Amino acid sequence: MAKATKWVYFFGFGKAEGKAHQKMLLGGKGAGLAEMTNIGLPVPAGFTITTEACDAFYRSGSHWPTGLDKQIREAISKLEKKSRKKFGDDKNPLLLSVRSGAASSMPGMMETVLNLGLTDVSTEALARKTNNPRFAYDSYRRFIQMYSTVVCGMHKDVLESKLHALKERLGLRLDVEIPAEELKRLCAEFKEFFEQDQGFPFPENAYEQLKGAINAVFNSWNAPKAVTYRRVEKITGLIGTAVNVQQMVFGNMGDDSGSGVCFTRNPSDGSNEYYGEVLFNAQGEDVVAGIRNPLHLDELKRLMPDIYDQLLAVRAILETHYKDMQDLEFTIEQGTLYMLQTRNGKRSPRAVFKIAYDQATLPMLTKKEAARLVAKRYLPLRYSAVVTKPVLTKEEAIERVNAKDIERLFYPEIDTEALDEAHGEGVERFLNDHRLGMGINAVPGAAVGRAVFDAERAEERAAAGDKVVLIRRETSPDDVGGMSVAQGILTATGGKTSHAAVVARGWGKCCIVGCEALDINEQSHQMKVNGQIIKEGDYVSLDGSDGSVYLAELPLTLPELPNEYYKIMKWVDEVRTLGVRTNADTPADAAKAIEMGAEGIGLCRTEHMFFETEARRLAIQEMIVADREETRRKALDKLLPYQRDDFFGIFEAMNGRPVTIRLVDPPLHEFLPKTPEQVQRLSQATGVSKEAIEHRSEQLHEANPMLGHRGCRLAITYPEILEMQVRAILEAAVAVRAKGKKVKPEIMIPLVMDPKELRILEQKTREVADSILKEAGVKIPYLVGTMIEIPRAALLADRIAEAADFFSFGTNDLTQTAMGLSRDDAGRFLPDYVDADKAGIFPDDPFQALDQTGVGLLVEMGIAKGRQARPGLKIGICGEHGGDPDSVVYCHQVGMDYVSCSPYRVPIARLAAAKAVMAEGGPKKPSAAKKVAGKARSAAKKASKAVKKSTTSTKKKARTKKR
Amino acid sequence: MAKATKWVYFFGFGKAEGKAHQKMLLGGKGAGLAEMTNIGLPVPAGFTITTEACDAFYRSGSHWPTGLDKQIREAISKLEKKSRKKFGDDKNPLLLSVRSGAASSMPGMMETVLNLGLTDVSTEALARKTNNPRFAYDSYRRFIQMYSTVVCGMHKDVLESKLHALKERLGLRLDVEIPAEELKRLCAEFKEFFEQDQGFPFPENAYEQLKGAINAVFNSWNAPKAVTYRRVEKITGLIGTAVNVQQMVFGNMGDDSGSGVCFTRNPSDGSNEYYGEVLFNAQGEDVVAGIRNPLHLDELKRLMPDIYDQLLAVRAILETHYKDMQDLEFTIEQGTLYMLQTRNGKRSPRAVFKIAYDQATLPMLTKKEAARLVAKRYLPLRYSAVVTKPVLTKEEAIERVNAKDIERLFYPEIDTEALDEAHGEGVERFLNDHRLGMGINAVPGAAVGRAVFDAERAEERAAAGDKVVLIRRETSPDDVGGMSVAQGILTATGGKTSHAAVVARGWGKCCIVGCEALDINEQSHQMKVNGQIIKEGDYVSLDGSDGSVYLAELPLTLPELPNEYYKIMKWVDEVRTLGVRTNADTPADAAKAIEMGAEGIGLCRTEHMFFETEARRLAIQEMIVADREETRRKALDKLLPYQRDDFFGIFEAMNGRPVTIRLVDPPLHEFLPKTPEQVQRLSQATGVSKEAIEHRSEQLHEANPMLGHRGCRLAITYPEILEMQVRAILEAAVAVRAKGKKVKPEIMIPLVMDPKELRILEQKTREVADSILKEAGVKIPYLVGTMIEIPRAALLADRIAEAADFFSFGTNDLTQTAMGLSRDDAGRFLPDYVDADKAGIFPDDPFQALDQTGVGLLVEMGIAKGRQARPGLKIGICGEHGGDPDSVVYCHQVGMDYVSCSPYRVPIARLAAAKAVMAEGGPKKPSAAKKVAGKARSAAKKASKAVKKSTTSTKKKARTKKR
Repeated sequence: MAKATKWVYFFGFGKAEGKAHQKMLLGGKGAGLAEMTNIGLPVPAGFTITTEACDAFYRSGSHWPTGLDKQIREAISKLEKKSRKKFGDDKNPLLLSVRSGAASSMPGMMETVLNLGLTDVSTEALARKTNNPRFAYDSYRRFIQMYSTVVCGMHKDVLESKLHALKERLGLRLDVEIPAEELKRLCAEFKEFFEQDQGFPFPENAYEQLKGAINAVFNSWNAPKAVTYRRVEKITGLIGTAVNVQQMVFGNMGDDSGSGVCFTRNPSDGSNEYYGEVLFNAQGEDVVAGIRNPLHLDELKRLMPDIYDQLLAVRAILETHYKDMQDLEFTIEQGTLYMLQTRNGKRSPRAVFKIAYDQATLPMLTKKEAARLVAKRYLPLRYSAVVTKPVLTKEEAIERVNAKDIERLFYPEIDTEALDEAHGEGVERFLNDHRLGMGINAVPGAAVGRAVFDAERAEERAAAGDKVVLIRRETSPDDVGGMSVAQGILTATGGKTSHAAVVARGWGKCCIVGCEALDINEQSHQMKVNGQIIKEGDYVSLDGSDGSVYLAELPLTLPELPNEYYKIMKWVDEVRTLGVRTNADTPADAAKAIEMGAEGIGLCRTEHMFFETEARRLAIQEMIVADREETRRKALDKLLPYQRDDFFGIFEAMNGRPVTIRLVDPPLHEFLPKTPEQVQRLSQATGVSKEAIEHRSEQLHEANPMLGHRGCRLAITYPEILEMQVRAILEAAVAVRAKGKKVKPEIMIPLVMDPKELRILEQKTREVADSILKEAGVKIPYLVGTMIEIPRAALLADRIAEAADFFSFGTNDLTQTAMGLSRDDAGRFLPDYVDADKAGIFPDDPFQALDQTGVGLLVEMGIAKGRQARPGLKIGICGEHGGDPDSVVYCHQVGMDYVSCSPYRVPIARLAAAKAVMAEGGPKKPSAAKKVAGKARSAAKKASKAVKKSTTSTKKKARTKKR
Repeated sequence: MAKATKWVYFFGFGKAEGKAHQKMLLGGKGAGLAEMTNIGLPVPAGFTITTEACDAFYRSGSHWPTGLDKQIREAISKLEKKSRKKFGDDKNPLLLSVRSGAASSMPGMMETVLNLGLTDVSTEALARKTNNPRFAYDSYRRFIQMYSTVVCGMHKDVLESKLHALKERLGLRLDVEIPAEELKRLCAEFKEFFEQDQGFPFPENAYEQLKGAINAVFNSWNAPKAVTYRRVEKITGLIGTAVNVQQMVFGNMGDDSGSGVCFTRNPSDGSNEYYGEVLFNAQGEDVVAGIRNPLHLDELKRLMPDIYDQLLAVRAILETHYKDMQDLEFTIEQGTLYMLQTRNGKRSPRAVFKIAYDQATLPMLTKKEAARLVAKRYLPLRYSAVVTKPVLTKEEAIERVNAKDIERLFYPEIDTEALDEAHGEGVERFLNDHRLGMGINAVPGAAVGRAVFDAERAEERAAAGDKVVLIRRETSPDDVGGMSVAQGILTATGGKTSHAAVVARGWGKCCIVGCEALDINEQSHQMKVNGQIIKEGDYVSLDGSDGSVYLAELPLTLPELPNEYYKIMKWVDEVRTLGVRTNADTPADAAKAIEMGAEGIGLCRTEHMFFETEARRLAIQEMIVADREETRRKALDKLLPYQRDDFFGIFEAMNGRPVTIRLVDPPLHEFLPKTPEQVQRLSQATGVSKEAIEHRSEQLHEANPMLGHRGCRLAITYPEILEMQVRAILEAAVAVRAKGKKVKPEIMIPLVMDPKELRILEQKTREVADSILKEAGVKIPYLVGTMIEIPRAALLADRIAEAADFFSFGTNDLTQTAMGLSRDDAGRFLPDYVDADKAGIFPDDPFQALDQTGVGLLVEMGIAKGRQARPGLKIGICGEHGGDPDSVVYCHQVGMDYVSCSPYRVPIARLAAAKAVMAEGGPKKPSAAKKVAGKARSAAKKASKAVKKSTTSTKKKARTKKR
């Protein structure tokens, strides 16, 4: 070894070896302590053992790496020297805390051991030195408890029950009331039990205690809960946890002492207020445990105004320094303030916007307040300027907001406050008792309603005023009516991209899928879950945040959008250059999408309209069972007015914004009746025999419907379907125009695989459209374009572009075909492909985040070839990926004109589009006025870039992406 | 119009305006007549009206183009002048024949009108001039009949019955016996009837007759039968038919006259003999109609030795000139020979080889014979050298052979000669009476056997010695046992690429699919066809050449390969550079394939083996229903010896040739039991409950199995399956080696979509393989490669190549995924895409001929990127396309190392590969010895070419291909 590895980073006494940016090496907590030390804040001295040491520990089979022991001993010597205390001493013992701290905070890891270094001898010394035996033995008792449970894995209740028994015997309510003698006896009892239980005596050597605690932290890195957490949260690239060893300060040394936790702003609504609690004469863990009621910081202001002022200065310094709201821990030891932790604080989605906006518009302190704190020497003079200005730029404020924050902003949630009020500490047990099972949290939010097991019953009950939750084995387009009236949707099968999930996501409606515990009996309108029968009408609640299903009527809260959301989204729109449209099939969806900031419709699916009423359903079914063109045309004539009305409503709602309408796409058999009753009704309505209907169903059955007779292939076989739809679109457009409104229809031909195929249908479309416009005597500019959703279409995009006014990448199907991967079936094996602990072949589910490595090559080729043949070709995307932030950034980078996504994902896409611009070095033209002019230019630039990119794409990918 | 278009090409009197190569303009017949005239052969003078005139006729709405009338009249003047006769004359009338003649011969078009120009007046003149009233009125009678039926569309029987009645009345048997007076009366009767029927008198003006006949020829170009024929035979690019107008010569002018047709060689076995017939005192149509028995050419030799010698010279001249066997028509008019037609003759597949080989090795005439004919002035002196040398080179002989010839060579056929003997003229009616229906002729050949409606019964009956035809609604892998013992396979559904068709094609077994008339009842072991019940055991015959199904036991003939086949295929192998392997799953297949010339196995499907016996089926099913790895491994242990034995047999059969084994590919549910009985048996064998088996089946059901949990995805989920298969392969290899034989296993991982996915499986494969070799203490070089059959794999081929020793393009699945087209479902709409009269989007069914325009881009990209990363990477193809000639040529062009196809297509692929070399300008190294050395060099060259090709592929395609 050329140079010894540095495993230990010292901090304290005004100087730290570590820095804030060394989170990966020192963990979040360690980096925070080092940084606070360097800033000059009062931090108890100590040292951080690096994550690399943890990694080395694992690599060597649980041995400390060479040099670690020596470096730890040196650090302790330094602590002893500076503090004039001695570790494990019988006169003036040095006491330590040991805390884990990875780069990301991570539940399931060992957290804290306090008062380490106490032994029978040093506790006695502490009692003598502080002249406070109760304090000393209470500290010792706490240490033994913590060490036993946290380091040695003893069950928490075992020792806690002994403490409890003692209090009962003495007739006491609070720990602080137990006299010193009794505590001393309790410590002895604890230690005796420890030896019995563990088979060796409680360590009486301080350094041995420390070694045990450090190893416990190392080991906790791979505790099952921590591993699971990392997998679920997709935390990768971390090598281990750091260990923070710090000199103890005591909040439990009397009424001039205390411990507190606080946020520099209100984390639940983002208010610009100091938000926290303090508990006098207590150690940090007591605040968290909630044994006594802590006091609000305002009380601290009243009781210890100087400490409060110091904390005010700390708040201003740290927020200015970190440019973000901080989550702080502090201890007051006999009137002296010590900072124990700073980290970016978790906050509610509302608070994300409020805080980011405030930080970009308001200073931390008024000049007056700053001057006062400077005068008191709590605030260093060098901060007086910065703390009186906003800490963030608009762009930085945008960066503070994430897709998940927007998402969470719109979903109702289980009202945990109301539950708290109702059940107090028993909330968790209450929820556990009522939890029926867990499924896949396909769409977050929450829903409460009466269980209903079929879609028609759902509609009936909803019409009668019930709130219902629709529960199905799996859903089909037939269920859409029932789904639309349900509060939430629950299925026994399927994954995040199953029919239920996709439809629900479009509506922003809570949906849990793949809840395998459900055994649904649709005939008898009930289900069995682990032996329990749930009948129609029973209340169930869905928690889409974690996939829990409860047999209970839980309270919900509905979010109200904060003003700051609108303000920041306005900044977002000023920055972004990528257009954001929506996928919407109804006037209501369209209106919702405009509210969410959509600039047009990028995908209007015409087939969903067919399911809306019985009459429509029958008409489309009649069309399908028709055995010749003539009868087919008759059925289509019935559908025409419905479609025209729908388009009219959508055009009106969109008020001149572009509306891209996709012609019918799914295979015809999807529309056919499934149950004998439905067949019966269709037979009655059409006069076609049941046998003939069943025969037709069988005829239309496909081995691989995804690759079957669908999309524009239907229009090649049955041109009359296309004619009817184009007629409905243009007649609606003419009617809207007649009302003096603007209308911009864009007709989109799906599933094209060949230039000639598109040319045939494009010409047919223009024929019908032009004849209607000619007849009406109006000019309405309309576009005819195509989806690029089959590899062959991307490969031949240059020739396809000759017949297309625009391209819209259907990346759902493009992913399926390019990867040979059925979205409906991938659930059985794709999780292993994505799971880093299994095969770990893909970084993400390719149906959620666009596979840029593979499918992306086709997208880039499609864009480059398309624009080669037709410069300035308008190009968008309308798959699910249009609402995925990473994918939106990608769409910006490859030069698309717009993305289209479901209404609730529109703000997410807007945000991602803005971030994409900033990632390229910020907006070139921040003024919204210049945006439009700039767009044409940048589109041209993008196109030529895309061509270049495509031809050299292989090399580039290899260089720029690591998978 | 700057220069008048030339619509009419004159020929005759030793000189013609047209040339042999002007087939497109003059039609085949016209070009032949022009060429024969120019060569100096005796051709009655005349003229050809061009196909362009026909085209102009259609374009203008059935009007003659400007100039046509004038040019025709000029040509007739010329004929009149040179022949000193006059058209429609009452003294010395010029008589004409009118014949259609497109570039390809085409049934359904108007064929011939003879004796045109005869009227009441001119017939009388002819009678006078020839002093042969019987001849004159017989000619007139024929003309009226022909004109009425052929030009005016009257039914043939109408006038024929009058002729018949006349003969009956006179008590005569032959036409020639009818006296002139009766014929004259008959003519009058015909004309009277004509006027009644048509509403206008029979044209008495010769030029009017001619106009009518020419228009009739033009119109017949678009007669339904002709249109259908062009569609079925995929004849495109023709603009119309030519019309040949020629001075009449008469074979019916007495016993010194006659008409004949002949082939320059025997068209049915290819023997080098003059093969034809002559009928004295008859016109050409009499020979064809078979009214009197014609005489063999030998009789002519005896009766008219000079004419025969002239014909011998004609034969030598024309074969030398056209370098191919000719189909001739001639007439002898009062001792003078006239040639009326020459064209390349149709021949049996045997004859194709025999003739091509003979033409490349033997001269037409011996020197002595040539000298004799020169001496008699029948053979011009300039021919004496060329006719005594072989007319073809080896390469030209290869060019003469086509894929279809090879294909037809191997299939049994309905023995029409035997039928002829049995039924005489009633053959056609006999076949019609027994035809149950028509299906799609998926695999040609013929089959006869007893009808059986399920696979197990087929096996039972076959074991009992019955020949059976398996009839199913559709087949599944479960049926493979029954299919393998059947003589032929017939299904009610499916297309040319359905399971039945693909499997049967692999075996070269006659198969008719999609025969929709069949209403099969599998339970009652019978079917209903148009009301008729066919029971198990009834004899049926399949004619795979046209898709006919007969309820009869028809006689078959089995082909015997001619020696010349082997000789020419040897030349083929000397020329080609592309390797040809086979798809084979059993030792028997492997042996067959070697016989067919395969150089290795390119695809050994391991899953077909699982169906071979009940024990194997149960073992694989047990593996699938296993609910945990342990039980799965136990079931796999049972399979191991079966697989090992199979591989052992195949390795032995291939005797050191490379064997590419694909690991298990289809989704597991394909192996599961389908019927309740099968479930019952599996339950008994495994102890797994029926419910559990059914549940597992349901669990494994997939929405789109093609894109589902199959291929290497199974190996990712269940690595133990891969382990078992690799173990079986290597243990078999070790065992073969132990017998002192060579073995070259190549393990192929299917359905790869990602480099990491392949790397994981490749490493697992090597681990298992190496451990077995190490244990056995032998070194057997083996390869691990992958299939490229998903677009993403082609797109990422550079990175995939890093883990692959070889690529094999699975173009079946690549076509499905790249085009988003399910092979199983495309039958409902793809025909419209391929049919030029419907949408006409694709030139060919992309599952039969590789879609070079689209899918080809992925293939080229895959090759270029693969070899970029790994120069010299071995690349092949193993989809159905490997046996399609055009696709094989493509594989050669893009630089693949080999193609692999089913055994019976191996010779076809070899031939195509040779033709591909010749298309590039002939073999550079004709010696087989130098081939191997040359191969390495050319592979390298191809790779760099492929890279270049891929990067500029878009432009290149646009330039070189017209779709």
